[in-house]
Amino acid sequence: MPSDSPSAHVHAPNVHALILAGGSGTRFWPLSRRARPKQLLALDGPRSLLQATVDRLAPDVPPARVWICTTAALQDAIRAQLPDVPTDQVLVEPEGRNTAPAIGWSIHRMRQAIGDDIVAVLPADHRIADPRGFRGALAAAARIAVDDDRIVTLGVRPRWAETGYGYLELGDALASAAAGVDARRVARFREKPDADTAQRYFNGGNHLWNAGIFVFRGTTLLRHLARLQPAMAEALEGMADDPDATAARYGQLESISIDYAVMEHLDDIGTVPLDAGWSDLGSWSALDEVLEADADTGSVLHGDALAIDAPDNLIYAEDATVAVVGVSGLAVIQSGDAVLVLPKERAQDVRRVVEMLRAAGRDDRL
Amino acid sequence: MPSDSPSAHVHAPNVHALILAGGSGTRFWPLSRRARPKQLLALDGPRSLLQATVDRLAPDVPPARVWICTTAALQDAIRAQLPDVPTDQVLVEPEGRNTAPAIGWSIHRMRQAIGDDIVAVLPADHRIADPRGFRGALAAAARIAVDDDRIVTLGVRPRWAETGYGYLELGDALASAAAGVDARRVARFREKPDADTAQRYFNGGNHLWNAGIFVFRGTTLLRHLARLQPAMAEALEGMADDPDATAARYGQLESISIDYAVMEHLDDIGTVPLDAGWSDLGSWSALDEVLEADADTGSVLHGDALAIDAPDNLIYAEDATVAVVGVSGLAVIQSGDAVLVLPKERAQDVRRVVEMLRAAGRDDRL
Repeated sequence: MPSDSPSAHVHAPNVHALILAGGSGTRFWPLSRRARPKQLLALDGPRSLLQATVDRLAPDVPPARVWICTTAALQDAIRAQLPDVPTDQVLVEPEGRNTAPAIGWSIHRMRQAIGDDIVAVLPADHRIADPRGFRGALAAAARIAVDDDRIVTLGVRPRWAETGYGYLELGDALASAAAGVDARRVARFREKPDADTAQRYFNGGNHLWNAGIFVFRGTTLLRHLARLQPAMAEALEGMADDPDATAARYGQLESISIDYAVMEHLDDIGTVPLDAGWSDLGSWSALDEVLEADADTGSVLHGDALAIDAPDNLIYAEDATVAVVGVSGLAVIQSGDAVLVLPKERAQDVRRVVEMLRAAGRDDRL
Repeated sequence: MPSDSPSAHVHAPNVHALILAGGSGTRFWPLSRRARPKQLLALDGPRSLLQATVDRLAPDVPPARVWICTTAALQDAIRAQLPDVPTDQVLVEPEGRNTAPAIGWSIHRMRQAIGDDIVAVLPADHRIADPRGFRGALAAAARIAVDDDRIVTLGVRPRWAETGYGYLELGDALASAAAGVDARRVARFREKPDADTAQRYFNGGNHLWNAGIFVFRGTTLLRHLARLQPAMAEALEGMADDPDATAARYGQLESISIDYAVMEHLDDIGTVPLDAGWSDLGSWSALDEVLEADADTGSVLHGDALAIDAPDNLIYAEDATVAVVGVSGLAVIQSGDAVLVLPKERAQDVRRVVEMLRAAGRDDRL
């Protein structure tokens, strides 16, 4: 089966994608800025992470069934990047209030159009090396979501003892899974563990990384939300009935993640393993790991980058020439009016730069 | 005596300065480019090295007696930087042919105006921390050049066993020197020594660095040139008589330094020690040594530069924000459309970058 043909597993009802694209992280500064957050960046190839998210869905979930939840500040850039997504399916959240309000509000906005269809909630800024493997897992999850009326999440097989992610503790096998799919009940959501616990999870083989990908009937999610977060559900219903009141009311919703608000309260969530080269590209060093090093220099070179006696660097030149001599283990990032130099292993410390710029009122560089 | 008052030692005849400003080095890439070589850069303060050269002369040698030898490509930039130097005293050498042709040709051009006056030949791209000390040495040299009709050079007391400079071996004291001036005959010009020899010169205390600063009557220099380089002298005379033929003939002059062509053949050259914080600023690391480190970070910060946990770096931000975290010993240089990162101790390797760009036909970055 060619990699871009529709997966045979997907039956009616249709699957819609709801891509959460309102984020504004700083971990890819100076490339990421307020007006150009990570999901809009083409970090690992010619297409932005958001575009790649839509591209990899397309054989199974065409742009006509893609919905984007974002902010007013980003909507124009997103519509420009995604001309095939119907413009009124770019939903503009009045303000960022975390994933539970965003998903609940979006599903109310989608409700008329999608009826009892399946919704796959997806982050906009992850990388998946194997799109076909991703579509297979998504199709398997959608089938279980339909057959069992169950929320299903895609879980990533841990590749190291990461302390920065939540984990899914695996329970019983799900009878409804297609042949060859190791679908399980999620016995428990585990928050970001300490190092010892992460190592135990990793060694034990009974935990998956929570990648924030959820598949469910829209009606199912709203039913759970009504029971578990009645105040939020009522407020969202009110906004759906009277859209003019949304701007005023939205900001009063509790800022809470869908995991805390809904998922962690349920004992029947399913999970399908995602073995498709997933990365959340959480830092410059994560990007360095997924990009291929130049054979001559041993460094990852992006753009007009030169390395002389300089192996094992990430040199990312957006729109200038960046020449590096006699160093290793560094990330050297150039974007427009800013340059960042730091050891790859300290990639997280970019936030200290951003904090310093913020404290200095340097909004022109943020 | 205030530091900008005329030195009492200077008597008639007048001293004229001939500043050699045609150079096109690459050691300050990416700040230095073909159209903006080192002498036009404000590396160590608000004024360019060329402007600082003129400024430090001014109390004794006003701009009206300053002459600049440069190239067609740089003349406009130089006139813009030096509005007080008479425009026809910016002499445009038809092409670069090293210092002997440049000086000989320039003195022919100056001849009508300067008569039997003294000429001080000066590089355009050196740094001198103590301008008053410099003017004192220059005045002492000029007095000897007048009294003895002798070529006099300023020699820099070695501060380490440098292998990159030529040396002046000191001979007998000159009787004509003013009181307190340790003027000597140059017993011999020594080419760039090997490390052992340089160490011996340094330990022995009988050698000075040759800084390329020469003081003489213009007529004296031309007389020596006629005797030692008759072909060149004849060609230069011919150009002086028929300026229209200059462009065609100039390129046929031997490309030879004034040291090789004249100075090393003479046994009566004098030298006056220059103890005035001289530096030829030969590399980014030399610049790092003369600039003051930021007290908070321990790095030299120029422009919009941030250092976090990053001591002992030179961070030079010309027109972007440069943020450096968790590294030390690096030079990080940003200028327009290019960035350079290398250990300070490998500052000379910038030439490898320039060579690579040249080989790749990247004239847009040179």
